Amino acid sequence: MSVLDNLDIQLGYLKESRSILASSSLEERNDALRLIADALEKNKQFLFDENNKDLEEAEGKISAQILHRLAFTQDKLDSVVSGLMDLIKLPDPVAKTLEKRQLDDGFILERRSFPIGTIAMIFEARPDALVQMVGLALKSGNAIVLKGGSEAKNSNRALVRVIKEALKDSAVQNGWILQIESHGDVEAILKKDDYIDLIIPRGSNAFVRHVMDNTTIPVLGHADGLCSVYVDEDADIDLAVKVCVDSKMQYPAACNAAETILVNSRIADAFLPGFKKALEPYSVVIHGDERTKGIISCIKVEEKDYYTEFLALELAIKVVDSLDEAIEHIRIHGSGHTDCIITENPDARDKFFKLVDSADVFCNCSTRFADGFRFGLGAEVGISTGKIHARGPVGLAGLMSYKWLLTGHGETVAEYSGKNGKKFKHKDIL
Amino acid sequence: MSVLDNLDIQLGYLKESRSILASSSLEERNDALRLIADALEKNKQFLFDENNKDLEEAEGKISAQILHRLAFTQDKLDSVVSGLMDLIKLPDPVAKTLEKRQLDDGFILERRSFPIGTIAMIFEARPDALVQMVGLALKSGNAIVLKGGSEAKNSNRALVRVIKEALKDSAVQNGWILQIESHGDVEAILKKDDYIDLIIPRGSNAFVRHVMDNTTIPVLGHADGLCSVYVDEDADIDLAVKVCVDSKMQYPAACNAAETILVNSRIADAFLPGFKKALEPYSVVIHGDERTKGIISCIKVEEKDYYTEFLALELAIKVVDSLDEAIEHIRIHGSGHTDCIITENPDARDKFFKLVDSADVFCNCSTRFADGFRFGLGAEVGISTGKIHARGPVGLAGLMSYKWLLTGHGETVAEYSGKNGKKFKHKDIL
Repeated sequence: MSVLDNLDIQLGYLKESRSILASSSLEERNDALRLIADALEKNKQFLFDENNKDLEEAEGKISAQILHRLAFTQDKLDSVVSGLMDLIKLPDPVAKTLEKRQLDDGFILERRSFPIGTIAMIFEARPDALVQMVGLALKSGNAIVLKGGSEAKNSNRALVRVIKEALKDSAVQNGWILQIESHGDVEAILKKDDYIDLIIPRGSNAFVRHVMDNTTIPVLGHADGLCSVYVDEDADIDLAVKVCVDSKMQYPAACNAAETILVNSRIADAFLPGFKKALEPYSVVIHGDERTKGIISCIKVEEKDYYTEFLALELAIKVVDSLDEAIEHIRIHGSGHTDCIITENPDARDKFFKLVDSADVFCNCSTRFADGFRFGLGAEVGISTGKIHARGPVGLAGLMSYKWLLTGHGETVAEYSGKNGKKFKHKDIL
Repeated sequence: MSVLDNLDIQLGYLKESRSILASSSLEERNDALRLIADALEKNKQFLFDENNKDLEEAEGKISAQILHRLAFTQDKLDSVVSGLMDLIKLPDPVAKTLEKRQLDDGFILERRSFPIGTIAMIFEARPDALVQMVGLALKSGNAIVLKGGSEAKNSNRALVRVIKEALKDSAVQNGWILQIESHGDVEAILKKDDYIDLIIPRGSNAFVRHVMDNTTIPVLGHADGLCSVYVDEDADIDLAVKVCVDSKMQYPAACNAAETILVNSRIADAFLPGFKKALEPYSVVIHGDERTKGIISCIKVEEKDYYTEFLALELAIKVVDSLDEAIEHIRIHGSGHTDCIITENPDARDKFFKLVDSADVFCNCSTRFADGFRFGLGAEVGISTGKIHARGPVGLAGLMSYKWLLTGHGETVAEYSGKNGKKFKHKDIL
């Protein structure tokens, strides 16, 4: 039997067994989350030992930063356990009534949330991410295909073993979790639109782009996060400096960090020197256009810099002559993630809100607020730059689909057809 | 310049000009709908003449049924004009506040509906469908790429000419409409994920499947509509007969017509003879399993019949021993479109509602109710069997995405970080 045949059988089994999870109650799913948390605590030494194997193998081969992500420490364990406890507290995303309409007397239509089905989550070498994703799938009633970074092979195997063992005799059972390991299996998964309903890839821009370009399955995620802040002619200068610095500096490697600052020419003289001064402690590399260079000292910008997600202590500045030019710059160079205007003029804000076609459009606050927890979504599934289904920071609702449930008493369409047919009432009752 | 280069330029122009439409008011979009309706009336002779060219060319080459669809008559004109008037009456789908949350004092997050962007609509040789789609795109603020069936070439060109001329001097202008004609352009469109945000294909199952399998762009639609009715042991027999007959017979070629009747073995003797008798006037071909054949006379079913969307006076019957077996049969053979249970037992209904993973799950009413107008959605964009974004009958809301709009007064993430950082309030205010 080839690997692919085997994968088909496993995916078929997953599809079959997900109905056990789909028909479980909130209490049963919350109990299962608790069982996972307990099992992780109880088996922590085993988990740390297996993680150490990965760390030893990776030593010297990967950067200190990635090594730090790979380490599964007591701190990380505490954090995933508290994450599972937070999930327990969230309301049930399953079978929520989203619409309710009386079509006619005693003929009731309901639109209710249901799990999407099977979600493939592909992520970097971070064992804590695996636990987080299993928790999100469990709370939302979705079967899950897990592929973690190969550097975390031993850690991931150990985690899945502990989790599956913990759930074996629970009401939700454990048939809804499938771990895959090989790169070939990932490529195969991208073609399995009969079995996989949604793919959530995390990792490098290039990897996410590769997934998006090579599957007909819907993908929830983002490749680039090229965020801009536009400092309008009606900006409050101090506020502008403060927000621009935070947007770049609060965590330069994040997808919601600003990469480009657009400055209105009428305010450039007043804004740029103070902004440059505020950045001085951080030794940020600034790429500026001719007009910027006329005001502050910086490197001459090249057009490609405006397309670059630096993810580092580096940014591009452009002086523009109008709000329209700023919007046009963002339309051409932006990635549809998060863009912000700094202005005291509500008309300028409204125009920016209307015409900038990005997931998050902000006014007078840091781009770094683009985040599920900061938005108050409870749990963050990811950030999507797609415009279908879910956009921007996505909470548990992004893992839900819905069904239309219609209950009647023998109604036929024939009765509601023709000139003398019965008429629908279509009365919303929610 | 090659055709493809040219298409890229046209799509780029479409993307640019859609901001005029996106920033238009409800009144401006409604005025534009009225302008189209007036222009169609005024130019009806031209439209009928051009349609006649298509009809003459098609004569003898296509079936009477398709010829009937191709004809653009006074009746069809009246119907599209009244469809445009109905669209005017619908509330504005654009810039609706979907969520509103106070993150902190004066720091307000809003989730508001916005057009998806550019939608490619590919449809069969029905000139009236073109007008309907332009109307939906206009009301929802989306740019549109139109590809109609080639048999309607002259009619479609004439319609687009009349519509674009009517909108030329309107507030929404006409740059948001692009008509393409060649098959090569359709294949090219499937690869243009930079320009096209959603594809809505209509036509044969095979065509829709082809589109779904050959694009990474989200597709809203359905290939198969293999709908089943399960007659439970606790069914009311008369009601079951009435609903099963309507589900099959009210319009046998529709995607929401029933193809398979599953009958619980405890009720089969009581149900099948009456059902057979009720179908007699229509000369329906019945494919039944061994147990069905033991009760009524019919053709021996083959397994492939349970996978067949007959779309004709033909159906398959299977006797099952339990609700579970019925659900399992639907899981394996169904297409996730519409499935119905006939039962007086609320527990059986609830289990069926929970475990049947279809867009529409009904109890005690005809599968033919699966329709945007009957559901009260105002306008129907299509029926989707996908589980992402929109599912089942889709109204104007299915053509909308949303943005997160956040307005602050200089808030930085740094202030909200660390142990002594400010705390979010996250208070829903809608």
